[in-house]
Amino acid sequence: MLFERVTVIGIGLIGGSFALAGREAGVLGEVVGVARSERTLLEAVHVGAANRTTPDALEAVRDADLVYIATPVAKIAETLDRIAPALKPGCVVTDAGSTKRAIMAAAQCLPPSVSFVGGHPMAGSERGGVCEARSHLFHGRTYLLMSATHVHDALARLWEVVVAIGARPVLVEADTHDRLVARTSHLPHLVASALAASLGETCVQRDFIGDGLRDTTRIAEGPVSVWREILMENADEVLVALDEFLGEADRWREALAARDEETVVDLLTRGRDCRQRMGEQ
Amino acid sequence: MLFERVTVIGIGLIGGSFALAGREAGVLGEVVGVARSERTLLEAVHVGAANRTTPDALEAVRDADLVYIATPVAKIAETLDRIAPALKPGCVVTDAGSTKRAIMAAAQCLPPSVSFVGGHPMAGSERGGVCEARSHLFHGRTYLLMSATHVHDALARLWEVVVAIGARPVLVEADTHDRLVARTSHLPHLVASALAASLGETCVQRDFIGDGLRDTTRIAEGPVSVWREILMENADEVLVALDEFLGEADRWREALAARDEETVVDLLTRGRDCRQRMGEQ
Repeated sequence: MLFERVTVIGIGLIGGSFALAGREAGVLGEVVGVARSERTLLEAVHVGAANRTTPDALEAVRDADLVYIATPVAKIAETLDRIAPALKPGCVVTDAGSTKRAIMAAAQCLPPSVSFVGGHPMAGSERGGVCEARSHLFHGRTYLLMSATHVHDALARLWEVVVAIGARPVLVEADTHDRLVARTSHLPHLVASALAASLGETCVQRDFIGDGLRDTTRIAEGPVSVWREILMENADEVLVALDEFLGEADRWREALAARDEETVVDLLTRGRDCRQRMGEQ
Repeated sequence: MLFERVTVIGIGLIGGSFALAGREAGVLGEVVGVARSERTLLEAVHVGAANRTTPDALEAVRDADLVYIATPVAKIAETLDRIAPALKPGCVVTDAGSTKRAIMAAAQCLPPSVSFVGGHPMAGSERGGVCEARSHLFHGRTYLLMSATHVHDALARLWEVVVAIGARPVLVEADTHDRLVARTSHLPHLVASALAASLGETCVQRDFIGDGLRDTTRIAEGPVSVWREILMENADEVLVALDEFLGEADRWREALAARDEETVVDLLTRGRDCRQRMGEQ
């Protein structure tokens, strides 16, 4: 057992799966689930993600050895601020937010007796909610961790939990994290969304729609509220990535307008090579 | 039996699958496969796609009731021109090219005793070659057909073949075809390729690459030679579609630069709605 008492704030797909996986692996003890909706509170107990639930985060964290914050990303900083006075000394706090710089900065408000380790599990599903929680959600997935200073012991214990739930922990700096996910996650979402929207009324021409378009735009179906927060939080890095993409699209535009076959071949080749270097999951 | 003697010029994944499916359904008789490579000629017979093969298209089409041209798209017009003098009266000619205006125009060179019906099966695979040919490749897929004038009987027979191989025939004009596939197939390929290429060295950061990016860029791995031809042939329509996409991307750029959350929500919502209207296969 690595953490006897665990509180999951925002117990949904990610927080619920973390609790299920950690308990199944025997590394987490009693789990208290926190959510705003009455229905989620009932469901979290029903699916076995939490031993008990409460809408009161302050009461829930008071005895916690580990606090796992899996609320929408824009609420994490605010949650840290709110729970800070109630945390007991030695408590480890982590989160599952998709952007990291603002959260790592907000974690500075925590008392020095408490350790914060930022987290970003590279797992998820188009469908959210605690009823979708699965103990194998993190199996084989990368689990990014960001440590502040003086959290050596906390990081080591959380690292062990991540390994125990079948994920692969990778340590990264918050700046690097936000720069890279802007390119590998946020820009693709923006591009998929813009591509789908640019089709306009053509999107109902199902006779002409094949797997290629469906794959390319699949993630555009993701929840608007989640992606609004992510893209706003990481807007500066997403803009840099978007400009690089638009530079590439402009080269395409020029090459097609000039019917420049050599450049078209060059562009296709670079795109294919980059895609191949990504590999499959 | 709808066509006793069939010649497939360019017998690979598509041509081979058409032959296998048509023979299995009992609507096609003897199949002669034409290809340039000796290996393909042997493989086509080995996998049962053709009864016999030859590298000589002129000899192969002389007795044919149906000629199916499945060469690379840029070679189809030239092939029509070359085989025109050898076709017997009453012969039906069709193709499987992904762009249609130039091919329908080239088909005007055929003698009036021959009927041409353009075709575009919405099926395929990242892996090509006659060894990948499958009789069920067209099952449940749309099979677009374009008719010239005075080909009523030829169209009706080809329509029956398409139904017999499990596909869904849809009649469309060449102009409409090229305009729609520019948006639903060619632009997505260009965008996936540009997105993959714009990542540059980030494409090796596998810890940060999830299913979203992999799905969004999957088609960028398609064969460069095939896509070069398609994009060059349909460059005018692809440019119109690309400009609509770039307009959408510019709206994204402005919204993020201004941290305009309302517009970001609006853009995400439109993208999600368009994606949902596409539906799943």
